[in-house]
Amino acid sequence: MKNSLANERYEDIGFAKLDISREKRTGTAEAIYCAGKTKEQLLKILQTFEENGCSVLGTKCSAEQYEFVRAKMPKACYNEIAKIISVKAGKAAPNASKKSGKNRGTIAVCCAGTADLPVAEEAALTAEFFGAKVMRHYDVGIAGLHRLLSKIEEIRKADVVIAVAGMEGALAGVIAGLVKAPVIAVPTSVGYGASFQGVAPLLTMLNTCAEGVSVVNIDNGFGAAVSAVRMLNIK
Amino acid sequence: MKNSLANERYEDIGFAKLDISREKRTGTAEAIYCAGKTKEQLLKILQTFEENGCSVLGTKCSAEQYEFVRAKMPKACYNEIAKIISVKAGKAAPNASKKSGKNRGTIAVCCAGTADLPVAEEAALTAEFFGAKVMRHYDVGIAGLHRLLSKIEEIRKADVVIAVAGMEGALAGVIAGLVKAPVIAVPTSVGYGASFQGVAPLLTMLNTCAEGVSVVNIDNGFGAAVSAVRMLNIK
Amino acid sequence: MKNSLANERYEDIGFAKLDISREKRTGTAEAIYCAGKTKEQLLKILQTFEENGCSVLGTKCSAEQYEFVRAKMPKACYNEIAKIISVKAGKAAPNASKKSGKNRGTIAVCCAGTADLPVAEEAALTAEFFGAKVMRHYDVGIAGLHRLLSKIEEIRKADVVIAVAGMEGALAGVIAGLVKAPVIAVPTSVGYGASFQGVAPLLTMLNTCAEGVSVVNIDNGFGAAVSAVRMLNIK
Amino acid sequence: MKNSLANERYEDIGFAKLDISREKRTGTAEAIYCAGKTKEQLLKILQTFEENGCSVLGTKCSAEQYEFVRAKMPKACYNEIAKIISVKAGKAAPNASKKSGKNRGTIAVCCAGTADLPVAEEAALTAEFFGAKVMRHYDVGIAGLHRLLSKIEEIRKADVVIAVAGMEGALAGVIAGLVKAPVIAVPTSVGYGASFQGVAPLLTMLNTCAEGVSVVNIDNGFGAAVSAVRMLNIK
Amino acid sequence: MKNSLANERYEDIGFAKLDISREKRTGTAEAIYCAGKTKEQLLKILQTFEENGCSVLGTKCSAEQYEFVRAKMPKACYNEIAKIISVKAGKAAPNASKKSGKNRGTIAVCCAGTADLPVAEEAALTAEFFGAKVMRHYDVGIAGLHRLLSKIEEIRKADVVIAVAGMEGALAGVIAGLVKAPVIAVPTSVGYGASFQGVAPLLTMLNTCAEGVSVVNIDNGFGAAVSAVRMLNIK
Amino acid sequence: MKNSLANERYEDIGFAKLDISREKRTGTAEAIYCAGKTKEQLLKILQTFEENGCSVLGTKCSAEQYEFVRAKMPKACYNEIAKIISVKAGKAAPNASKKSGKNRGTIAVCCAGTADLPVAEEAALTAEFFGAKVMRHYDVGIAGLHRLLSKIEEIRKADVVIAVAGMEGALAGVIAGLVKAPVIAVPTSVGYGASFQGVAPLLTMLNTCAEGVSVVNIDNGFGAAVSAVRMLNIK
Amino acid sequence: MKNSLANERYEDIGFAKLDISREKRTGTAEAIYCAGKTKEQLLKILQTFEENGCSVLGTKCSAEQYEFVRAKMPKACYNEIAKIISVKAGKAAPNASKKSGKNRGTIAVCCAGTADLPVAEEAALTAEFFGAKVMRHYDVGIAGLHRLLSKIEEIRKADVVIAVAGMEGALAGVIAGLVKAPVIAVPTSVGYGASFQGVAPLLTMLNTCAEGVSVVNIDNGFGAAVSAVRMLNIK
Amino acid sequence: MKNSLANERYEDIGFAKLDISREKRTGTAEAIYCAGKTKEQLLKILQTFEENGCSVLGTKCSAEQYEFVRAKMPKACYNEIAKIISVKAGKAAPNASKKSGKNRGTIAVCCAGTADLPVAEEAALTAEFFGAKVMRHYDVGIAGLHRLLSKIEEIRKADVVIAVAGMEGALAGVIAGLVKAPVIAVPTSVGYGASFQGVAPLLTMLNTCAEGVSVVNIDNGFGAAVSAVRMLNIK
Repeated sequence: MKNSLANERYEDIGFAKLDISREKRTGTAEAIYCAGKTKEQLLKILQTFEENGCSVLGTKCSAEQYEFVRAKMPKACYNEIAKIISVKAGKAAPNASKKSGKNRGTIAVCCAGTADLPVAEEAALTAEFFGAKVMRHYDVGIAGLHRLLSKIEEIRKADVVIAVAGMEGALAGVIAGLVKAPVIAVPTSVGYGASFQGVAPLLTMLNTCAEGVSVVNIDNGFGAAVSAVRMLNIK
Repeated sequence: MKNSLANERYEDIGFAKLDISREKRTGTAEAIYCAGKTKEQLLKILQTFEENGCSVLGTKCSAEQYEFVRAKMPKACYNEIAKIISVKAGKAAPNASKKSGKNRGTIAVCCAGTADLPVAEEAALTAEFFGAKVMRHYDVGIAGLHRLLSKIEEIRKADVVIAVAGMEGALAGVIAGLVKAPVIAVPTSVGYGASFQGVAPLLTMLNTCAEGVSVVNIDNGFGAAVSAVRMLNIK
Repeated sequence: MKNSLANERYEDIGFAKLDISREKRTGTAEAIYCAGKTKEQLLKILQTFEENGCSVLGTKCSAEQYEFVRAKMPKACYNEIAKIISVKAGKAAPNASKKSGKNRGTIAVCCAGTADLPVAEEAALTAEFFGAKVMRHYDVGIAGLHRLLSKIEEIRKADVVIAVAGMEGALAGVIAGLVKAPVIAVPTSVGYGASFQGVAPLLTMLNTCAEGVSVVNIDNGFGAAVSAVRMLNIK
Repeated sequence: MKNSLANERYEDIGFAKLDISREKRTGTAEAIYCAGKTKEQLLKILQTFEENGCSVLGTKCSAEQYEFVRAKMPKACYNEIAKIISVKAGKAAPNASKKSGKNRGTIAVCCAGTADLPVAEEAALTAEFFGAKVMRHYDVGIAGLHRLLSKIEEIRKADVVIAVAGMEGALAGVIAGLVKAPVIAVPTSVGYGASFQGVAPLLTMLNTCAEGVSVVNIDNGFGAAVSAVRMLNIK
Repeated sequence: MKNSLANERYEDIGFAKLDISREKRTGTAEAIYCAGKTKEQLLKILQTFEENGCSVLGTKCSAEQYEFVRAKMPKACYNEIAKIISVKAGKAAPNASKKSGKNRGTIAVCCAGTADLPVAEEAALTAEFFGAKVMRHYDVGIAGLHRLLSKIEEIRKADVVIAVAGMEGALAGVIAGLVKAPVIAVPTSVGYGASFQGVAPLLTMLNTCAEGVSVVNIDNGFGAAVSAVRMLNIK
Repeated sequence: MKNSLANERYEDIGFAKLDISREKRTGTAEAIYCAGKTKEQLLKILQTFEENGCSVLGTKCSAEQYEFVRAKMPKACYNEIAKIISVKAGKAAPNASKKSGKNRGTIAVCCAGTADLPVAEEAALTAEFFGAKVMRHYDVGIAGLHRLLSKIEEIRKADVVIAVAGMEGALAGVIAGLVKAPVIAVPTSVGYGASFQGVAPLLTMLNTCAEGVSVVNIDNGFGAAVSAVRMLNIK
Repeated sequence: MKNSLANERYEDIGFAKLDISREKRTGTAEAIYCAGKTKEQLLKILQTFEENGCSVLGTKCSAEQYEFVRAKMPKACYNEIAKIISVKAGKAAPNASKKSGKNRGTIAVCCAGTADLPVAEEAALTAEFFGAKVMRHYDVGIAGLHRLLSKIEEIRKADVVIAVAGMEGALAGVIAGLVKAPVIAVPTSVGYGASFQGVAPLLTMLNTCAEGVSVVNIDNGFGAAVSAVRMLNIK
Repeated sequence: MKNSLANERYEDIGFAKLDISREKRTGTAEAIYCAGKTKEQLLKILQTFEENGCSVLGTKCSAEQYEFVRAKMPKACYNEIAKIISVKAGKAAPNASKKSGKNRGTIAVCCAGTADLPVAEEAALTAEFFGAKVMRHYDVGIAGLHRLLSKIEEIRKADVVIAVAGMEGALAGVIAGLVKAPVIAVPTSVGYGASFQGVAPLLTMLNTCAEGVSVVNIDNGFGAAVSAVRMLNIK
C-alpha cells in the first residue's frame, strides 16, 4: 500500500499534538476548540502555532481565556459576540496568504433573528479569516417573509449560502428553494421549551423538502464556514 | 357546589359508555377513534348512536372495519384516503342541523405535499361533517414558494387556516406570517430518517417564530378540524 | 403571479429588521423575544418601534434588561412575574386602539397550580395588551376537581379558554370536555424528574382524547394569547 | 451472615430455571412472559409447573402459542383479548387456595377507553387468578367526566384502584384525587403520533400532582394486578 | 347524576385554592410543592392552612424559603437534607391524629447509596408525618449484595417497602424478588452521564422482571410515602 | 419590494402543483419523493412532467409503483437497489443538457459497508442524472483502515466527496481529515440496537472534529447528490 | 512516519473489500454482518473467504439467506436460534487453529431469561468458533436470586463473564459485585413498553455501580464474544 | 443452597455500609463516588476505610471536598484535573500491595483531544492506583490520523487499550481495527450541540463495526480502568 500519510507532521506538546500539516493536507489550518481547555493549555497551543509561523483561530473562547492569552500574546484579537480568538502570523491569514490575489468567491451569511448573531458572526468571521468574501443578511426570518424576499436577488449572487436559524429553523429550506447555490444550514440553540437547545431547528433543516441543503452541528458557525470555504476552493 | 354535570348522560354498553350529551355540552358530537377497536365493537357503537338518533363520525377506520360495518349498516359512508367512516342520522349532520341556514364561516385546509393528503382530507371531511365550509389548497410546500404566494389572497379570506405538513413542517409558520386568521398546524408522519414519524414537523410547528399558530397531534387532522369548528362557533 | 407582499415594509437597523407592517398584515404587531438579545439591542429595537409610533411588547425580559431600558425609556412598563416589558405609543395599544369601542370577547386564562402563574400571567397580560378581556382562574388543577367544577359555569362564558399546566398537564383535556369554546393548551416547565422541563404536559396535551384542544410551545403564554386574540378577531 | 435464601428451590430444565418456591417467598407464584419464547419452550415450562402441582399463568401469549399448548394440555385456558393463558392445578389457584374462605378485598379496574380493554382485562384476570375480587369500570375517560363521576361512589368502595389509560393518561390522577385507596396507574400503547406507543400516558402518570399514584410499565396490566394483590395481602 | 363532590371545599387566596377537604376525601392532607413558588406565596399558603387548623407539609423547600417562613411562623420545622418544611397544628399530625391509638403498620425505606439519602429521607419523613412507622436501611445497593441480604429478614417484616436508588436502580427488583410486601420504587437523579438525571433507574424499575413493583417519579420520595400510607390504610 | 418570484410557474393537477420552473430557479429540476403517493398519483405526476418536456427523477420508488408506471410509460427506467425511477425527456437529462460539453467535475461516492449500497447508489445515480461524473469506492469502513488509505489518493482527485455510512458513521470524519474537498456525510439506517435506525451515525457525523463536513438526512443519498451538484455548479 | 499498515491486504469484489489480513492484525478474522446484504452478496463473500482458505462466521443471518447459501456451499452450518452461519476452512477455526493445544481460558455466558437465549447463544457460539471454552448459565435473572447464587461458585471459575439480559438488565451488575473476572454486559431487546427495544437494560448496564462492567450494543452477543476472546488472548 | 456470601462483611456507619471485603471478593477495593455526598460524609467514609487498614480512592471529588478532608487527613492526595482523591494505607495500594513484585501488564490510555484529559487522567490514575502500568497517548483524534498512526506500534504493545473521546468518538473503533488487545471505550461529555453531553460518542462506540470494543458510561474513566485491571488479572 502506498503510504499517503508519510509526509504529514505534528508538534507534540504532551497534552496536545498540533497538526502542523493540516492546512497543506485539507486546505485550512487546524483551528482550536477553546471550551474545555484550561487557559494555560490554550496559551501554550496558540504560542506553539505562532512559533511555527502559522496563523491560528480559536472558537468558543471565553472572555476570561482571552484576557489570559492577551497578557502574553498582545497580537491576539478577540470578537466578543462570536467568541473567536485569532492570532495572525506576520504574513497574512494562513490560506488567504496564498490566494489573496484571486477572487475567492462570496459567501452569504443569513440569519433568522437577532439572537442568532453570535453563531452567524462565528461563521462570517471564520470565513473571512480563511480569505472568503462575506455578505451579511441578518433578521430575515420567515415570520415576515418580505424581509427575505427584498434581499433575495442579492443573496442569489453569492456562491454559497450559510443559513443560521434557531427556534423552528425554516429559513434554510425557504432560501434553498429560491437560489442555485449550495446552502449550509446552521441550527442554533436560540429558543426555549420544545426547541430543546437547537434540536428543533436541526431536525427541520435535516428534513427540508427543499433540495441543496446540508447541515452542521447546532451553533457550529465555524464548521459551516470551513465547509463553505472548501466549496469555494473547488477547481 | 353547584352541580354543573347533573344533566349529562351516556349510554352504557359494557365495553363503552357513549357520551350522548357531548354535542350539547361541547358543540360537536362524540366521534369514534376506530383503531384498536374490534369490528364488532365498532359496529355496536355506531348502531347505538344511530338508535339514539345521532349522526356519528369515526376516524382511522380500516377498510376491513368498514366492510364489516357496511354489511349491517348500509347507510355508512367511507372515504378511503381519509379513513373516515360516517353515518348520518335521518336529519342533517349533528351540528350543522341547527345552523344550516347560517353562514358558518370558511376553513382553508392547506397541505405541503401530495403525501399529506390523507391527513388533510381527514381535516377537511371532518370540518364539512360538522357543517363548516372548506377550501382546499394542496401541495403548496415551501420548496416552491410561488405556489403558496399565488394562493395567499384566497387563503386570507378564510376564517381559520389548517396547515398540514410533514418532513420539515415549515408551511404553518410561513402562512401564519401572511394572514390574520388563527392557524392550526397539523404535523404529519410523512418523511423518513430524522423526521422520526412526525416529530420533526411537530417541533417545527411548536417553535415557529410566526405568531398565531397552535398545534395538534401528529396526523390528527380530525382534532384540527374540531378546534377550527369551535373557533367558527365563537360568538 | 400577483405580488401580495408588495406593500409590506420593515425598518432595517443592521442587527434587526423590524416588521413595521406586521400588525396590518396579521392583526397583531411584532413582539420582541428579549432572551438572547443584548440590552443595547433590546433598547434600540424598542426605541425604533416607538419612533415609528408603534406600541410594542417584549417577552422573557430579564429584570436587568428592563432596568437598562427604563433608564432611557421611562415609559416602559414591566411585569416581574410574567417577565413582560411593554411600551405604549401615545395612543392606545396597537390593536385595541382600533376596536376599543367594540366588545372584543373574553378569554379565560386557567392554570393548574401556583407555580404556573408566570406563564399564565404572560398569557393574560399579552391578551390584555392586544385589547382582549381576560378572566383568571388560577390553581384549579385536577387533584382537587371541585375547585375547577365550582368555576366551570363562569369558564363556559368565555369565548376562548387558555389552559396552563405543568407536571401532568391534564387540565386542558378536562376543561375541553366541559366547554364549547376552543381550548389553547400551554404546557409549562413546572415540575421535576420525568416532567423533563415540560415535555410531559406537552405530550399530555397533544394526546388528549378531549376534542377542541390545540397546543403551543412549553411556557409560551404569549403565543397562546396571540392565537386567542386571532380567534376573537374572526368575522 | 444468616443465609435467608437457604430454603429456596428451582427446577432446572436447561433453557429455564423455574422458581418453584416463589409463591412461598413472595406471595404469588412465578408467571410466564410468553412473548419471545418458542412454543416448545412455553409448553415445556407449563408442563413442568403442572408436574410440580402448581397452577400457572402466562401473559402476552399469542393465539398460535395457545393452540400449540392446548393440543398437549387440554386443561389450558386462554383469553383472547387479554392474551392470558392459564393452567389450574387440581386444587384451586395457587394463592387463593389458602385464603379462599376469607374476604380478600376488592380491586377496581378502570379504563379510559374501549381500546384499553386488552390491558384492563390482563389486569382483571390476573387479579382474579390470584384470588382477588374485581369490579370493572370501562370507558370512563376524562373527555366525558360525568361517566367517571357517576361511578365514583362505587369505586370508592374498592381497596385498590387500577387505572388503565392510553393517549393522554389523565384518568389515574383524576381518580386519585377522589378516592382514599392507592391507585396503580397502567399506561397503554393506545394512541398514535406523539403518544409514542405509551410514553405520553406514562409521563402523565409519573408526573400527576394527585397523590397516591404509582405506575407500572406500559401495557403491564399483569404487573399492576400483582402489586394490587400484594397490597391486599398486607396484614 | 348524584353529585359526589357536593361537600368538598377549598380556601381561595387568589393565586391558590387550598384544598381544605382533601384529607377527608383522600386520607392525607394537601401537601405543598415549594419549588416554583415565591417565598411570599409559600408563607401565605402555610399560614392559611394553619388558620384552618390543619397541619401541613411542604417538599423541595429551599433553605432560603424556610428562613423567610420561620421569621413569621416560628413553629415551622425544616429538614435540610430532605428539604421538607412542616407545620404541625396544635393537635397531632393531620392523619395520625385520628389513628394514633392504632398500629398503622411499618414502611421499610431502603436506599442503594449514600447519595440517595435526600430522597430516602423525604420518603421517611413524609411517612412519619402521616403517622406511619418507618425502618431505614441505607446503602444496601447491589454492588455488595451481602449488605442487603444481611437485612432481608428485617425488611420482610415491613408491610410496604420503599426502594430508593439512582444510577442503575436495580435495588427495587432485587428486593421485590425476596419479599411479600408491595415495593414502591423511587428512582433518583444520582449519577452522571447516561443516567440522564434519573431516567436510567426509572426505566430499570419500570421494566423489572420481579413482580410487585410500582414506580413513582424521579426523586419523588414524597409520592412514594403517600402511596405507602394509602396502602397501610387499606381495610 | 421588487417581485423576484413573478416569473415562476407551476402546473396544477389538483393533488399536486408541479414546480415547472424549479430547474431554472435552482439549477436542478423538481424530483419526486415516491413514498406515500398512490401509484396513480405517481403516474400522473410523471406524465405531466413528460408532457412539459422535462426529464424527471423519483426516489424511494417501490417495485410495485414502478411496474404500474412502466405499463403506461415504457420509457421509465428503474434501479432496484437505489429505488430510483427516471424518465428522460427526448433530449438529454435536464441539467446536463445545457452543459454536456463542459467538464462538470467529479464526485467521489464512498461507503463504509456493503449494506450501505442502496443509499450510496441513490447518491451516485442522482448525481449522474444531473450530469456529474461519479467515482465509487465501496466498503472502505474504518474497521480495516488500509482499504480506505489505499484509495485515498484517488479520492483526493474528486471535487466533492459523499461519505455514506451506517452503524458508527465514522467514515465521513476520517475522510474529511485527509482531503481538501467538501465532504457531504450521509448517515444510513444500517445497523441495529443502539444505532436507532441511523441516529447514531447522524450524531457522529454532526459532531465530527474533522472540518469540512456537512450532513444530510438519514438515508438521503438523493439530497447529498443534489448538494454536491450545486457545489460543482459554483462559478 | 513509519507505515504500520504497509502489509495489510484485502480482496476487492466490487461491492465489498474483504479484510483478509484482519485475523493477523487483530487476532480474530473478519466476520460478516448478514442483515442488509442480498443473498447473492452474502454467498459471494463467503465463497471468497473460503477461496482464500479462511474460516468465516456470519451473524444475524436469516433462514432464507442460509438456504440460498447452503445450496451452493454444502459445508455451511447454521444455528437457527443464534442466527449464525459459519463455514470452516479445511483446517480448524481461524484463531483456534494456532492455539488449539493450549488452554485458552473459559467464558461464562449467563442470561437472565429464556427469551434472551438467541443473544446468549450468539455469544456462546461465536466464542467457541474462535476457540474459547464456554460454560452456559441460563435463566438466572434477579427475580429469583437463589438461582444465580447457586451457580456463583462455578461462574467464579470463568476468566471472563458475559452477562446477557433484557428488560431491566440488572444481572450484569449483580454478577460483577460477586466475581473477580471482567464482566461484559449485553443488553437485549427482550421486553416491551418502556424497555424501548433494549434501551432500558443498556442504560442499566452503563450505570451500574458495580465495578468491572463494560457494555456492548443491544443484542450484540457477537461483539461481546470477540471482546472476551481478546481478553483471553492477553499475554 | 451453598451460601457463597457467608464470609462477606461490611462496616455500618449509618448513612453508609462500607464493603470491607470487596477487594477480596472482586479483586479491587470499594471506591467512593464523591459527588452527591456531603463533605462530612466523605470524610467519615475515608476515615473508616483508613481505620480498617484499607487504601481508598474517591472519584469526582470537588476541590472543596478535598480541602475539607485534607484538614483532617493530611495523607490524602488529590489530582485536580482527574478530580481523584486517594488515601494510601501504611502499606502499598490495596491491590498492588500483594502483587507489586509481578509484572501486571500495561494499559494504554489514549484520548482524542486535550479537552478529554480529565477523563483520561481519571482512567490512568485509577489504573495506577490498582497497580497497573500505564502508557499515555493524548490528542490522537482522527482529524489528523497520522498522529495516531505514528504511535500505533507502541499502542500495540499494551495488553489493554482505553480509548477516551468526546464529540464524534470515532477513536475507539479506529484503534480496535488496528490492535489485538481488547479496547475499552470511554465516551466523554466534551462537545456541544448534538453531542448531547456525550450521547453522540456513546452511540458511536456502541455501534462501531470494529470488533473488540466494549463501552463504559460517559466520563467514566474510573470504570474503564477497573475493567482493564480485571482483564490484566485474568489467570
